[in-house]
Amino acid sequence: MTEIRNFDVVIIGGGPGGYVAAIRSAQLGLKTAIIEEKHMGGICLNWGCIPTKALLRSAEVYHLMQHSEQFGIKAKGVEFDFGAIIKRSRDVAAQLSGGISKLMKKNKVEVFDGRGKLNGKGAVKVEKDGKKIADITAKHIIIATGARARVLPGFEPDGKQVLTYKEAMVPDSMPKSLLVIGSGAIGIEFASFYRNLGAEVTVAEITDRVLPVEDVEISNIARKSFEAQGMKIHTGTQVSGIRYQEERNLEPGTKNLENKSSKFQVPSSIIATLTKDGKSFEIEVERVIVAVGIVPNSENMGFEGTKIKLERGHIKTNEWCETDEKGVYAIGDVAGAPWLAHKASHEAVVCIEKIAGLHAHPIKKENIPGCTYCTPQVASVGLTEEKAKEGGRKIKVGRFPYMGNGKAIALGEPQGLIKTIFDEQTGELLGAHMIGAEVTELLGAFLVGKTMEATEADFMHTIFPHPTLSEMIHESVLDAFGKVLHM
Amino acid sequence: MTEIRNFDVVIIGGGPGGYVAAIRSAQLGLKTAIIEEKHMGGICLNWGCIPTKALLRSAEVYHLMQHSEQFGIKAKGVEFDFGAIIKRSRDVAAQLSGGISKLMKKNKVEVFDGRGKLNGKGAVKVEKDGKKIADITAKHIIIATGARARVLPGFEPDGKQVLTYKEAMVPDSMPKSLLVIGSGAIGIEFASFYRNLGAEVTVAEITDRVLPVEDVEISNIARKSFEAQGMKIHTGTQVSGIRYQEERNLEPGTKNLENKSSKFQVPSSIIATLTKDGKSFEIEVERVIVAVGIVPNSENMGFEGTKIKLERGHIKTNEWCETDEKGVYAIGDVAGAPWLAHKASHEAVVCIEKIAGLHAHPIKKENIPGCTYCTPQVASVGLTEEKAKEGGRKIKVGRFPYMGNGKAIALGEPQGLIKTIFDEQTGELLGAHMIGAEVTELLGAFLVGKTMEATEADFMHTIFPHPTLSEMIHESVLDAFGKVLHM
Repeated sequence: MTEIRNFDVVIIGGGPGGYVAAIRSAQLGLKTAIIEEKHMGGICLNWGCIPTKALLRSAEVYHLMQHSEQFGIKAKGVEFDFGAIIKRSRDVAAQLSGGISKLMKKNKVEVFDGRGKLNGKGAVKVEKDGKKIADITAKHIIIATGARARVLPGFEPDGKQVLTYKEAMVPDSMPKSLLVIGSGAIGIEFASFYRNLGAEVTVAEITDRVLPVEDVEISNIARKSFEAQGMKIHTGTQVSGIRYQEERNLEPGTKNLENKSSKFQVPSSIIATLTKDGKSFEIEVERVIVAVGIVPNSENMGFEGTKIKLERGHIKTNEWCETDEKGVYAIGDVAGAPWLAHKASHEAVVCIEKIAGLHAHPIKKENIPGCTYCTPQVASVGLTEEKAKEGGRKIKVGRFPYMGNGKAIALGEPQGLIKTIFDEQTGELLGAHMIGAEVTELLGAFLVGKTMEATEADFMHTIFPHPTLSEMIHESVLDAFGKVLHM
Repeated sequence: MTEIRNFDVVIIGGGPGGYVAAIRSAQLGLKTAIIEEKHMGGICLNWGCIPTKALLRSAEVYHLMQHSEQFGIKAKGVEFDFGAIIKRSRDVAAQLSGGISKLMKKNKVEVFDGRGKLNGKGAVKVEKDGKKIADITAKHIIIATGARARVLPGFEPDGKQVLTYKEAMVPDSMPKSLLVIGSGAIGIEFASFYRNLGAEVTVAEITDRVLPVEDVEISNIARKSFEAQGMKIHTGTQVSGIRYQEERNLEPGTKNLENKSSKFQVPSSIIATLTKDGKSFEIEVERVIVAVGIVPNSENMGFEGTKIKLERGHIKTNEWCETDEKGVYAIGDVAGAPWLAHKASHEAVVCIEKIAGLHAHPIKKENIPGCTYCTPQVASVGLTEEKAKEGGRKIKVGRFPYMGNGKAIALGEPQGLIKTIFDEQTGELLGAHMIGAEVTELLGAFLVGKTMEATEADFMHTIFPHPTLSEMIHESVLDAFGKVLHM
């Protein structure tokens, strides 16, 4: 029998929702515990945002070095060490995950290494390898268990040739060819990474455009850019099946044990059947990355007998992250879209500050940004042009291309666009949509504006430094109101 | 005799003040002329901001390539072609200068190729090579003649070994060693460029720290970083004299004609005498860059008999850029500090919109940002900690280091700091001071906030995307109020 431990707040899950909640909770003097099954920092830090950025940085450096002559720099035999690239990515993740553990210690958050689940009113049970290791009671229980890659029947990952984001981050060798199923942020980042390193990359997207949550104009520019880099992109296309190459090659009745046993040894290949407009065709690739969305980790959580409601697997919450069960909260991916680390972290703070009785501010969903760290980068916040026009709203749209910006030319980054959308009547910034170098960092200026309910005048009066890419923010806003200077 | 041409607005000087004034003026339906003596775009575009950014980009790429192994990328024989680097910089400047000429045409601004000066009430004379080529009358005359490098007696540039920013941009060969006199933005950018390419660089600064307009803490970090890169930095140090090496080597009475004639042929060397705390020492360098400030171009402008007032050479203006002479305005460097292109461009818009009778907004000086594009970059806006404390104001100071940011680690850019300063009583953002990768682009978020008179709450509620460097903005603000998450 384990001793029952009591806390003010217990958090199940140590990702960017959970660990931020733990820190904020401890800061406010609440006795806090966090339960994490695998690794502090969660998917984001260990298998998501962070290690992919490390990979993409290596690919970016490689790409730049291959084109360095335009900057007056020569080099012979530019080549990458794939193992070293992967190792660096893992080292970065390990360093940061270790950092989170230190933060828990520093903030006096008690960490339980196991799987947490509800165990009756105000109680949580922690298990490790199927064995109970702790019983916890707490006034406030926060579910921050995140999500995992969606697996489609017939596309089950084998970890060697058919990969989810997780295996795609640590392949044993550099693939010569690759099919990416799904062109959301995760799919496109891997497509960009492997293409920059020289793989033949095909992307299959079931909707009519890549990065389908982005503004149509940005999607179209992204597609053109990806294709110019040599990617093959099939939109409106379903991957109706995949099979291992050996199966096709085996004559009926033949027993080719050697082939069979090498089924998972790269390189062998996969035949994928793609269907577009009712017509099917096959492509042969070495690997497949399945990036078709995520599934919330809400099963087997002890929700039976509670008032917690699930909606397509996601825990239903209100603007304070409260579930329908008093004292139980949910934040981050498990509580629904958008499935983004920064949404989880902000929900964490809102949830804890509300619990602590502070004057908390609920998140405005329209102020949650989205970034894709492909080449070129894509970043946006707020309404797309299409969404803004819904319901007959009159809008003003501004555009400024990288080609008209001095810093972009000086950097050798002349491709991209900053697009802004304003309400014609009120002048309120409704959305900002960007593609090009450093847009993931440029977005901050729009985000502060959007949080402060900026109108066009606020951006016009802002003195952006020259020469910077950020001047395009100014110009795009000027353009929306017929005052653009450098076009 | 030339025909007298009449305009609503005539602008003398085609730099970032003048040409922006011309565009905005034409947009508002005013008949507009611009007079430019040398090159559209002015110093900024032809010999300043833009070509230096092109040079710095090449140096940055070279530096990255020399350290590419940390990213898993190998190359042999990484070397730069100095001529190609310089040529690229000139090509970028030429491309953008050509763009400005096109903008003048598109906006139907008449361009006079010559030197403009006042010629009595509401009149301007244009001369080319000492010959009058046009007589112009205009209701509104805008002086936007800019500034030039300050020349100190005994440090007159010879264009080969003793250089201003202009010659330092187009040297005929890569110097092995270099003394930079003055550690403001211009001096430090050249020091950084040449150091990144491998020159032995010494910086002499008369005040007690480098980048003396920046916050002391940022200055100190910058110095440490420059020294770690191998620069020699002497603060509190005056360069009391320079002389060509030959002069020392020549025995009295010796006539070494060969040496004399080669005096300006690189490489020969210069002996500079540096004085610190009353003690002098000599250093020997191949080149000297003199970057000790600028002098406004306000001489021989036909101001005699007008009410225009000069203050240390700068034209005195009010918040609408009006001089004391009715109908005459001044913008940009000639109208005083800060000598920055974006200040000139914003003054241009304020000046024209006021002329046009629109609801113009005067510039708030405390909202004008400053950027230095060295390695690491430096960027700031508003009050330094020292200035903010003057007069006994109570402040809150926040700091967040790059080392605590996931994107910075993933990029391999773990060095830097974001520092924020708030009024303790009102929560108003007083200043933001940054050093590190991409801070010149990150600054935009603070600038929008500062323009909108943001308090700490506005930054705290802003959802910066993960993983980005911009999250450090959030954390620095949180730190100022004891809520930092990742430290």
